[in-house]
Amino acid sequence: MHIAIIGGSDAGISAALRARELDPNVDVTVVVADRYPNFSICGIPYYFSGDVKPWQSLAHRTSADLEATGMSLRLDTLATRIDVAGRNLEVRDTVGTTSLIGYDELIVGTGAVPSSAGIVGLDELGPEDGVHVLHSMGDTFALDRHLDERTPRTAIIIGAGYVGLEMAEALSVRGIHVTQLQRGPEVLSTLDPELGALIHTELTRHGVEVVTDSKVASVTRGPDGLTVAGTHLGQPFERTADLVLAVVGVVPNTSLLVDAGARLGAGNAVMVDETMRTGLPNVWAAGDGVITHHRLLGLTYLPLGTTSHKQGRIAGENALGGSARFAGSLGTQAVKVFDLVAARTGLREHEAVAAGFDPISATAAADDHKAYFPGSHPITIRITGNQSDHSLLGAQMVGTYGTEVSKRIDTYATAIHHGMTVEAISELDLSYTPPLGSPWDAVQIATQAWTRSTTQRVVSAAV
Amino acid sequence: MHIAIIGGSDAGISAALRARELDPNVDVTVVVADRYPNFSICGIPYYFSGDVKPWQSLAHRTSADLEATGMSLRLDTLATRIDVAGRNLEVRDTVGTTSLIGYDELIVGTGAVPSSAGIVGLDELGPEDGVHVLHSMGDTFALDRHLDERTPRTAIIIGAGYVGLEMAEALSVRGIHVTQLQRGPEVLSTLDPELGALIHTELTRHGVEVVTDSKVASVTRGPDGLTVAGTHLGQPFERTADLVLAVVGVVPNTSLLVDAGARLGAGNAVMVDETMRTGLPNVWAAGDGVITHHRLLGLTYLPLGTTSHKQGRIAGENALGGSARFAGSLGTQAVKVFDLVAARTGLREHEAVAAGFDPISATAAADDHKAYFPGSHPITIRITGNQSDHSLLGAQMVGTYGTEVSKRIDTYATAIHHGMTVEAISELDLSYTPPLGSPWDAVQIATQAWTRSTTQRVVSAAV
Repeated sequence: MHIAIIGGSDAGISAALRARELDPNVDVTVVVADRYPNFSICGIPYYFSGDVKPWQSLAHRTSADLEATGMSLRLDTLATRIDVAGRNLEVRDTVGTTSLIGYDELIVGTGAVPSSAGIVGLDELGPEDGVHVLHSMGDTFALDRHLDERTPRTAIIIGAGYVGLEMAEALSVRGIHVTQLQRGPEVLSTLDPELGALIHTELTRHGVEVVTDSKVASVTRGPDGLTVAGTHLGQPFERTADLVLAVVGVVPNTSLLVDAGARLGAGNAVMVDETMRTGLPNVWAAGDGVITHHRLLGLTYLPLGTTSHKQGRIAGENALGGSARFAGSLGTQAVKVFDLVAARTGLREHEAVAAGFDPISATAAADDHKAYFPGSHPITIRITGNQSDHSLLGAQMVGTYGTEVSKRIDTYATAIHHGMTVEAISELDLSYTPPLGSPWDAVQIATQAWTRSTTQRVVSAAV
Repeated sequence: MHIAIIGGSDAGISAALRARELDPNVDVTVVVADRYPNFSICGIPYYFSGDVKPWQSLAHRTSADLEATGMSLRLDTLATRIDVAGRNLEVRDTVGTTSLIGYDELIVGTGAVPSSAGIVGLDELGPEDGVHVLHSMGDTFALDRHLDERTPRTAIIIGAGYVGLEMAEALSVRGIHVTQLQRGPEVLSTLDPELGALIHTELTRHGVEVVTDSKVASVTRGPDGLTVAGTHLGQPFERTADLVLAVVGVVPNTSLLVDAGARLGAGNAVMVDETMRTGLPNVWAAGDGVITHHRLLGLTYLPLGTTSHKQGRIAGENALGGSARFAGSLGTQAVKVFDLVAARTGLREHEAVAAGFDPISATAAADDHKAYFPGSHPITIRITGNQSDHSLLGAQMVGTYGTEVSKRIDTYATAIHHGMTVEAISELDLSYTPPLGSPWDAVQIATQAWTRSTTQRVVSAAV
C-alpha cells in the first residue's frame, strides 16, 4: 500500500502522520514544493517581531523528525499532473526533470495562494521592488532580506486581518512606521466593528497609523518608494512607503485537482465530502484548497490551520480504508495584537441571518477573575443567539493578553458544537478560583447578560 | 409574595438575586447570622497573602448593593427554628430577642461548618489559644488579630486541600515558616498522587515543609506553643509551632432543617431534588448544606462555591413558581499554589470504578502554546476514559500560572457535560494562535495520547 501526498504543510503532513500512526506498514511519500515541510506559517510574524529565532524553530517538526516516523519526503518537487486512471502523479524537480510516482491512494493538500484582490501592480511587483506577500518560507526569506539589506523606515500593510495585524505589531516593534489600510469600516473584520474598534485603538496606541474605509486600487514603484493609491471614504487617497506588504486573503490552489476533473464548490475550493473524498477515484483532498464543512453554515470556504490539521488527519485515516468524518468547523479563531487578544467562534449576526437564523446579539463586559485579586481586567464579550430557540450561535471576545480569552472561546466552541442554548451555558460546571475566575465565569456572565438584554421576560435557566 | 432566605453566602444571596431579577414585586428577606453577607470566602487566603486589601473588598457586593436590588437584609440574626406548618421562621438577634418572620416560601442556605476530623483539642482550643479555622469573616478577623498582635514565626497547617495550600502560600509569603501536614500520601488529594507531587515540589521549593502520611490525633497548648501530635508513617510524630490552622474539610450545617423534619442523604447533607425542594412544604434548600447531584456519580456531597451559586439561583427561581432544574456538578475545581495551577473535572480512576465505570487513565505533557514563542510551558494532563465506550470521564491538569489551565479544564468540563468520547475531543474546533495554543490544543494532544497509550489499535477519531 502506497499513499502519495501532495503538500508539506498542515493538511499534507497531518495526513502522512496519521497514516503512519495507524499503519506502520504503509508507504507514505510526501511531495513538497519547497525545502520546508511542516513549517508553522502562523508563526512567521513572530519571527519578524524577534520573538522567534532562528527561523528553523518555526518547524513543527524537522525533516529528520518527519522521516523518523517512516514517511518519505520528496522536497523541492512540484506536483504537475494527476493521472487518475493510471494512479500516477507526475512531478518535476528543480532542474526540470519530470518523473512519475505511482500510488494506491493520493491525498492532495496544495493549500491556498495569496490573493491580489484585483489590486493593479501586485502581480507585477515583487520582493525586489519591495512588495511582499507572506505565505511561505520563501516569502519569509525575501522579506527578511529586504529588512536586513534595505532597512526600510516606513511600511504600508494592505489588509488588517490576522496576519496583517500581527505584522503591524512585528514591524512596529522593529521601529518601522506602519500604515495599515483596511477596506472595511473597522480592522479585524472577522469581529463585529464594536470589538474591532478595541483592536484599532490598541494599534493606534502603539503607533500604527490605521486607515479604514480605504480601497486600494494600485501599487506603483517610483523614485520616492512604493505608492499605494485608491480611495479613502470615497475620496482619492495616496500613500508612499519603503515597503508594501499585501495580506488581503487567500484563494484556494486548485489547478492540479481541477485539471484532473475535480469539482469546485464554495469559494472556488475543491468539493470534498466529510470523509475528504474528492469524487475522483482514490483521490482525497484536505486543507486550504478544499471547501469547509461548517456545523452551522453547511458548506463554505473557511481556510484555517486547525481545520487543515483535522481534515488532513481524516484524509490520512480514510486513505487507509478508515471511515472518519470531519465533524465540521465553527470558524474558531484567536489573534494576539500587542497587549490584546481577540477570539471568535460560530457566527456573527449577519452571517447567521444569511444562514437562515433569526439572531440577536448583546455585548457585556466581565472580569477575567475576581476584581479583588490583582491583575484583573474586563473582557468584552459579544454573544449571538437565535431568538426562536435561544441556541447559542456565536461568541466574540476581546481581552488583555493573559485573560485566557483564547481558551474561554473554546468553552463557547464546545457548547456550540453541542447545540447548547444561551441559557444552558449557566449549567456548565466551569472552574473557579479567585486568581483565575469568578463563581459564574465570564463566559456565563455574558450569556446571562444576553438573556437579560434580549428577552422581555427572563426564561428558565434550565431551558 | 414573601420569600425568606436563611444564609448570606453564595446559595442564599444567589437565590435572593434571582428571585428579585425574575420578579421585581416579590418581597425577599435574607437572614444573615453575621454582618458579612455575600463575602467571597474563597478569597480569604488572598487577604492573608496581602494580595487583597482591605478586607472589605472581599465582598462580591456590599450590603448597600444588595439592598439596592430590592432585597431586605436581617444582619446579625440567627435562624433558630422553622415552623413548616405555620410558615414562620423563628430568629434571634444578638441581644437574645426572638421574633418570627412569616414567609410564603423559605430557602435555606445554611452552608457547612469546619470539621474537626476527630482531632482531640480542636473543639476546645480556639483563636485565643492560637488555634484557627477559616470559614467565615469572624474566623478571618481572629486570625488577622493573631498575626498582627502576636507575630507568630511558625505555623502548622493541618490539611493540604485547596484552602490549606492557599494558606501555606499566604503565610509563607508573610515570612512565617509553615509545616503542612497531610493525612494521605500526597498533597491535594483531589488529584492523583502523580499530579499532587508536582504541587508538593512547588511547596517545598518555596520553603513549606510538607509532611505527608501524617495522621494528627491531638492539638495541645503548652509553654512552648501549640503541639500537634499523631503518627507519621505509623511512627509517633510531634511538632510544635506558634499557630495552628486546621483546614480538614467541612460538614453540612443541617440542624435547622433536620429539626424541621428534612431528610439527610449523601455526606449527611440535606436531601433535595434537582429543583432544590427539600420535601418539606414551601421549603427549599441549596448550597453546602445539601446533597449534590453529580452528572456522573448521581447523588453525592461535593460542596463548592460554583455549585452553591447554581443551586441558589435555581431555588430562587423555583420558589417563585419556576421549574428550573440543577443540571448536575462535575466537581470542576482549580487552585493556584505559588507559581502553579492545578485543576480537575469529572472523575478520577478510583471514583469512576466506585461508580461502576471501567476506567483507564493516561498522563501526557503538552505545551500550553507553540514552544517557539517565548514563555511556553508544558502542562501535565491526566485523562481518565471509560474502556467500554471511550467516554471521557475526567481530566486533571497541572501547569504554570499563565498557561490557561483553569480555562482549559472548562473545555473538558463542557465535553463531559455532553458525554463526549475521548476521541471526539479532537473534533472540537478550538482556537489557535502561536502565542496561546497549538493547532491541536493541549487538551486534544492529551486525549490523543490517551487513545494511543490505552488501546491496542487506534480507533477512529470520529467514533
